[in-house]
This record gives sequence, structure tokens and C-alpha cells, in this order.
Amino acid sequence: MAESNLRVLLRARPEGAVEHGHFELREEALPSPRPGEALLRNRFLSLDPYMRGRMSAAKSYSAPVELGAVMEGQAVAQVVEDPTGRFRAGDWVLGGQGWQRFSAVPAGQLRKLDPDAAPVTTALGVLGMPGTTAWVGVTEIAPPRPGETFVVSAASGAVGGVAGQIARRMGAKVVGIAGGAEKCAFVREELGFPVCVDHRAPHFAEQLAAACPDGIDGYFENVGGAVQRAVWPLLNDFARVAFCGMVAEYNDAEPAPGPNLMQVVRKRLKLQGFIVRDHPRAFADWPRIGGAWLREGALKYREDVVRGLENAPEAFIGLLAGKNFGKLIIEVT
Amino acid sequence: MAESNLRVLLRARPEGAVEHGHFELREEALPSPRPGEALLRNRFLSLDPYMRGRMSAAKSYSAPVELGAVMEGQAVAQVVEDPTGRFRAGDWVLGGQGWQRFSAVPAGQLRKLDPDAAPVTTALGVLGMPGTTAWVGVTEIAPPRPGETFVVSAASGAVGGVAGQIARRMGAKVVGIAGGAEKCAFVREELGFPVCVDHRAPHFAEQLAAACPDGIDGYFENVGGAVQRAVWPLLNDFARVAFCGMVAEYNDAEPAPGPNLMQVVRKRLKLQGFIVRDHPRAFADWPRIGGAWLREGALKYREDVVRGLENAPEAFIGLLAGKNFGKLIIEVT
Repeated sequence: MAESNLRVLLRARPEGAVEHGHFELREEALPSPRPGEALLRNRFLSLDPYMRGRMSAAKSYSAPVELGAVMEGQAVAQVVEDPTGRFRAGDWVLGGQGWQRFSAVPAGQLRKLDPDAAPVTTALGVLGMPGTTAWVGVTEIAPPRPGETFVVSAASGAVGGVAGQIARRMGAKVVGIAGGAEKCAFVREELGFPVCVDHRAPHFAEQLAAACPDGIDGYFENVGGAVQRAVWPLLNDFARVAFCGMVAEYNDAEPAPGPNLMQVVRKRLKLQGFIVRDHPRAFADWPRIGGAWLREGALKYREDVVRGLENAPEAFIGLLAGKNFGKLIIEVT
Repeated sequence: MAESNLRVLLRARPEGAVEHGHFELREEALPSPRPGEALLRNRFLSLDPYMRGRMSAAKSYSAPVELGAVMEGQAVAQVVEDPTGRFRAGDWVLGGQGWQRFSAVPAGQLRKLDPDAAPVTTALGVLGMPGTTAWVGVTEIAPPRPGETFVVSAASGAVGGVAGQIARRMGAKVVGIAGGAEKCAFVREELGFPVCVDHRAPHFAEQLAAACPDGIDGYFENVGGAVQRAVWPLLNDFARVAFCGMVAEYNDAEPAPGPNLMQVVRKRLKLQGFIVRDHPRAFADWPRIGGAWLREGALKYREDVVRGLENAPEAFIGLLAGKNFGKLIIEVT
């Protein structure tokens, strides 16, 4: 076969901001499937903020990527050949193939996708891990009651966009926070959030307070940093915060101080972190429920598709700075 | 009647540390019961850290004490006369009579105490609001599973001492934190905690880590400050923290920064504040359950009784600095 396997490896661990030099692009020979493995041609690669944690050696909820190893990530692929007989050539599958053009992976770890049921890329975003994360955070960790004010940061993103739509369906008054006027307009007009506040605008904290005249009862935390500091004083008694991520701080070499926790007592707050993979049932529930909403046209999403695996490092660096607009996906050419 | 009514009034609101000048002692005439009221002679007054919040004008979970008004607080009293006929002279009752020798209060708001069932002062401590607080925090907010490591700060105090005994009964490995060798010895030898670490000792953080070789699964937070900072990095994945109070910071004029909250995501922590009065059922449950344990000799407590209402300001200032040893009670002479 004339094709080579382009791969993106972790060359060095970032101390602060991620840079191009932390990655290495390498052309290698195609892998040969071992017994039980299928050979895949990856078509779409998911880039997600959690990957920043995998680049560091520090203890996190998963083992880090080894230096010199291929960057991890979920991908939608087509089967080239499957000696196990489980899949046919051309079948669409979802699995954790990493940042590379081809991969040989155990066929039993792959989930078959039906390209007629939904666009295959939705398995990486709105119906995939990010959408499932939103489902867990809103319905299990910080469920809003009807009429409550529920704030979602990174509201135009893969997780936040879904989180706000679920909370709205549960009867909450949803307030989005996004970076820039264009994203805010999208959140209001396309995703249907009644309000979205631009955290890059001057007087953001005042604008958020004005957008939440009854305070904040629930908060879906994706970003941390200045957004968290603006939300904190607006939390009502008995407010619940689902801590999904703090992407604005992932590149910080030293953790910044957090809020004083006296208000946790005074306001009887509940702050709870979660990671979607601790909730395996949701990976069955959400694609079914969200898939039905999608087909009804009742669930909106946006994908930011970047062509070319060689552009993955640049796109990932931009993701950590909020430069993507919608679920970031690499089209592997 | 020759007796006068000594009262402790709030003269000024502290900005930082509480001082004697914030209080005013005044001798007044005895109050006259209005219709529906009983006249009480207060015998024992409870001093509790939450009262620091009532001295400030800042929004908290209760309205502040007005300037010039009597300081609030629960007291055990004997009835002098009750024109409503509900009580007889000499009956023991519990109510919120404040820092004063005599009070005239609605008879319907008083709870009769049986001095033969338990010492009347236990209604202010081990079986009263502090004990009930411990019951709620351990059994409802951060319940430990058998074998888990459960850390309690202010372990010799009115709340912490009970919290650790309840957690131990639930099968947890309980580690106390207290200030000074004498308090730690009491926590181990009298309250029966297997381990107690002195937060005033050098290398406290290292000693705490050594006392928790399997990390910390549950933490009952009473103090904040340096103790909170030592506990934070030891929290395990899925650890739960019951935020009951942060007494070490109550006198701070400006709130100190708290921990960065990224670990809330990474470790899937649950931090939850609570206030006992939001849990009314516990006020029926705990005196019954704790009372039975007490009669069996299975619940230990210590009271720090200071004679003389005129000494209440000094004792309260000491309470905020951890100078009391056990539940602080003023014997009103």
C-alpha cells in the first residue's frame, strides 16, 4: 500500500502553555493487525480539553500519555480489514485510536456506527463523550428544578451547548457564558438559550449579575478562572455546582488560589466534580435519548471541523484558548 | 425582687477579632412577662462559634443581632413563674433566651427538660444543637462507609467530638485533629478516636499524612485555615467533605483565598455545606438516638463550664481562639 501512517506523538511534557514543540509528527509504516485486531482508517478525530491532563505526568484520573507515544483520543474510522470477521471493509466504527491516520485495534473494543441514523461525527460530540458528559452533569450531579437559574460556561462548546439545552428542557432559566459576541449570538439564536453573556466583554461580572436577577441556583463549570470568580458571589443558598472542567486553567503551571470556602457553609453550597466514565449507564442512555431529540430537531449542535491531521496540534492549542467554535474535530485526510 | 437582670449586649460590630469592647454588660430591671410569656431564670448559657456571624452585619444565614440588643443564644433555664400554666415554678426548660440572667419568653417556644433523663446541660451540647449538627453532617452530608478514613477537625469540641464517635460507630477509621497535646490525649483516651493529630505541633501536615496512610475519604470541616490546607491534598478520589464551619477564619476581616478547585474535578470531590436548622427531623432523631447511647455509656463528651455571665465575653473570645476544652457553657450565677 502506498499510504503511510501519519502519527502525532507526545515529544515533551508542557510545564505551562502547550506549544507545537510538545508534539512530533511522524510518518510510519502501516500497522499490521495482530490476532483479534482490525485495521482501521481513521476519518475523524476528536480533540477535547481533557487531553491536556494526559500530556502532564502529574497524577490525574488517568495515566498520562508516555513520552514518544501517540496522543490519545477517540476517533471515527472505517474498517480497512477485519480478520476477526466482526466488521466488513468500509464499516464505520468508533473507538480510541488516537491521533493517527491508521490504527490496528482489538475489534472487540469498537462500536459500530450507523451512518444513516445520525452523521458519524455526532458520535464524537453531541451524542458522544461530550454530550454524555453534559447529560451526567445536568441530570445527575446538579439537576435544576423548574424555574431555577442554571448557568453554563463554555456554552458554545461541545459539552456546554448540550448541558444548557438539557437544563432548559428540565424547566430551568438557562444563562450561557461564552467568549465573544459571535459565540454568544450562536448560543442564543441557534442553541436557543434565552440569554448568553460574553466573558470577554468589559464589565462581564456586572453583566452576568444583571442576567441573573434571582441569583444562580445551578452552575455547570467548564472553565474556572475569571468566569468562576464572577459566578461565585451570585450563587444562591443551596446552589449546586457541577465541576466538569476548568479549561481556562489547564495551562497554568501553578494552580491559582480558589474562592474562600466559607460561603460553602453559609450558603449550604454543594460542589461536586465528576468524570463521565464513572457513569457507564449514561453511555447507553444519552445516545438513545439525545439521538431521539436530534431526529426531532430538538437538539442543536455545531461542529468545528479542521482538515488534516497535521493541523491537530495547532487546533488543540487553539482549543485551550477557546478559539474553536463548536465541537472540535479533525478530519483525518 | 432584689435581683437584677444582668444582660450582655452587642455594643459594636467587630471588623476582625472580637474584643471586650464589642460587648456591654448592663444591669437592668427584671422583665415582666406579657400575655403568653413565662418568666425564666437562666441557669446555663451555650456559647457557640456561629455567634460570631451574628455579630456582623454581613449577610449570613441568619439576621445579625441588632446593635444594643442582647446577644443571642440558647439557654437552659428554670421557670420562675408561668402565667400560662404550661410550666410549674422550678421546671427546667430549653429555649433561645440569650446572654442574660432573666428572660420573659413565649411559653410555647420552650422545651421541657427532664433532669433525671440526662444532665440538663447536655441539652446545650452533646444532645443539643452541636450534637445534632454532628449527626446531620456525618449521617446525611458526608456519610462514611465502613473501613474508610474519616477526619474530624476540632475533634475535642462540641461538634467534632460527637462527629467522630458517630463516624466510628459507622465503621470508619476516624482520625481527629485538635489543638495541643492535652486535647489530643482526651480525644484518644476519652472519646476513643484511634488517632488524633495536634495541629499546633511542628510538621502538622506531615503528621496528618502519616496518620492517614490510605488518604482521606471523608472530612468533617469545622475550622478551615491551615488545617483545611493540610487536609486538601490528602483527599482521595470521591472524597466527601461536610462543611460545618471554619472557625479559624471567623475573625478574618478579609477572606483568605481557598484551594484551587481543579482537584474537585480530578478527584470527583463532593464539598457540601450545611446548617443544622435546615434539618428539623434531626432535632427529634438525635436526642433520642444519642440519648440512648449516652445512657449505655457509649457516647462521651466533655463540658467546659465557666461560672458567671459577666465572663461570657472573655469565654467567647477564647472560643474563637480554641481556648475552650469541650463544649463551652456559661453557668449563669
